[in-house]
Amino acid sequence: MIQLYWSPRSRSFSAIWLLEETGLPYERVLTDITTGAQKAPEYLAINPMGKVPGLKDGDAALGEAAAICAYIADRYPETNLAPAATDPLRARYLQWLFFSPTCIEPALIQLFTKLEVLPSTAAWGSATQTFDVLDAALQKGPWILGEKFSAADITIGSGLHFAVRMFKMVPARPSFDAYLDRCAARSAFQRAEKIAAG
Amino acid sequence: MIQLYWSPRSRSFSAIWLLEETGLPYERVLTDITTGAQKAPEYLAINPMGKVPGLKDGDAALGEAAAICAYIADRYPETNLAPAATDPLRARYLQWLFFSPTCIEPALIQLFTKLEVLPSTAAWGSATQTFDVLDAALQKGPWILGEKFSAADITIGSGLHFAVRMFKMVPARPSFDAYLDRCAARSAFQRAEKIAAG
Repeated sequence: MIQLYWSPRSRSFSAIWLLEETGLPYERVLTDITTGAQKAPEYLAINPMGKVPGLKDGDAALGEAAAICAYIADRYPETNLAPAATDPLRARYLQWLFFSPTCIEPALIQLFTKLEVLPSTAAWGSATQTFDVLDAALQKGPWILGEKFSAADITIGSGLHFAVRMFKMVPARPSFDAYLDRCAARSAFQRAEKIAAG
Repeated sequence: MIQLYWSPRSRSFSAIWLLEETGLPYERVLTDITTGAQKAPEYLAINPMGKVPGLKDGDAALGEAAAICAYIADRYPETNLAPAATDPLRARYLQWLFFSPTCIEPALIQLFTKLEVLPSTAAWGSATQTFDVLDAALQKGPWILGEKFSAADITIGSGLHFAVRMFKMVPARPSFDAYLDRCAARSAFQRAEKIAAG
């Protein structure tokens, strides 16, 4: 049985959403970050960074939300959340799967701390560039890969939901609103929101 | 034929190293970032972030160094650079594959800009935590997954090589030195270093 280590109101949201999309049976293990449970030695064996979410699946264990999404989508291909390795869409899928932790996450920290850094220095370019690129990519829709909904929508959609709607750190744009409405209309997203509220 | 878009002395290094490890035929397409070639419309169609590296493989196209490593390793399983989806090592492989862009990259920006940010706020915790966790993970060796060398060693090894040896932003530690020596002893690493020097 898959076990998801999570905490309310945390970066666990995307992993919960993903698992709710899959229909796979899984157990949620509360790892309350307000009590420091994520720093317990037994949890560090799952995610050495001492962060939620973390996942166990038999002998497999890992942390990092986007890596968990990548793992589940490939381990359980019947969930239809990742293009196969031989599908040309696979390339773009991987790029967008990495985009949320690699670009959206640090871009939000950049906005939050008013950090100035050269776009050629930062891997994410700049916060402006990150959200401009996302805006252009979401113009077509309905999903980040076009017609196919994938785990990349879960990482991108979660990151954008936090940035635009929860923390309001990034101004709404028509493409963001339309995309986030489509995400929020999914029943798995709605279940995940209720669960993540704690 | 795989085409790698690259520029000397850039983040292209890990993708070059990976392709040199695979033995696959590939063409390097110089995309000189000192002339702004990475912002040309035809290149933005490959990597909308306007950064190198970028990769084309038939109809597949993507940017983001770690995503390129993930793509090639899964697309060409005969290169033996990724545990299969059903291998329990796959989970840890994905976590470390994401670790370089998600933790090492922003941690280096944090050091470079002397940014102060709460460890609970930043996905990478802090620069200290990022390199402490890596230190612990590399104690055993020889590779990040133990006996098996994988594409995760290419992303982690490249990130650490930049941090410790090229830019000297992170103090050397015995585990880092031993690991980087093992990386540097690989003939593919040595070829990549020569190529990347331009």
